[in-house]
Amino acid sequence: MRATAQLLEDGQDLDLLARRLSVLADPRRLRILFAVHAHPGIRSSDLARVTGALESTTSHALALLRGSGWLRTEQDGREVHYQLADPLGHRILHEIGSSHLPGVEHRT
Amino acid sequence: MRATAQLLEDGQDLDLLARRLSVLADPRRLRILFAVHAHPGIRSSDLARVTGALESTTSHALALLRGSGWLRTEQDGREVHYQLADPLGHRILHEIGSSHLPGVEHRT
Repeated sequence: MRATAQLLEDGQDLDLLARRLSVLADPRRLRILFAVHAHPGIRSSDLARVTGALESTTSHALALLRGSGWLRTEQDGREVHYQLADPLGHRILHEIGSSHLPGVEHRT
Repeated sequence: MRATAQLLEDGQDLDLLARRLSVLADPRRLRILFAVHAHPGIRSSDLARVTGALESTTSHALALLRGSGWLRTEQDGREVHYQLADPLGHRILHEIGSSHLPGVEHRT
């Protein structure tokens, strides 16, 4: 048991990890992440459309997903494009069954 | 956009997935999952000890982790041993930085 206890002690910050994972506990936010994963660079107006949500609901969810480290944005003139923020998010999305569209490559 | 919307529609039940993932939003429950992953077959009394929690708190968390599909039990006489319940849980734990103890093999 000592080795297991030691492994937990040496491990990462589980408070921080739990906070990040808590953002996944919502089907609308999962839908947004699946859509960004399928279509990297998607705009927020298109995200609202493909997820079937109001733009205001989508904006709120996007702010939360950015603030918690799941998404990042790229500005292109007046347009804001959404990407997955890091490889961890990318790998977890694959594990939970999220796919790319055909021809889309990893960009994170 | 139509392909992305179609992909979301064809996808799995995101309500169910969000409910399962919501269980990860707690550092004590993550600590238990990390310990079961490190040491498959661990008993609940040892789980309480290595995670530094009360046995009552641990029992409550274990019931939730079983009910939400993360853990399963094996009875051995009077002892109850905990295992990860499925390969998805196993893979997600690896992604979020949970390791086996040396010599421990996948059993799910």
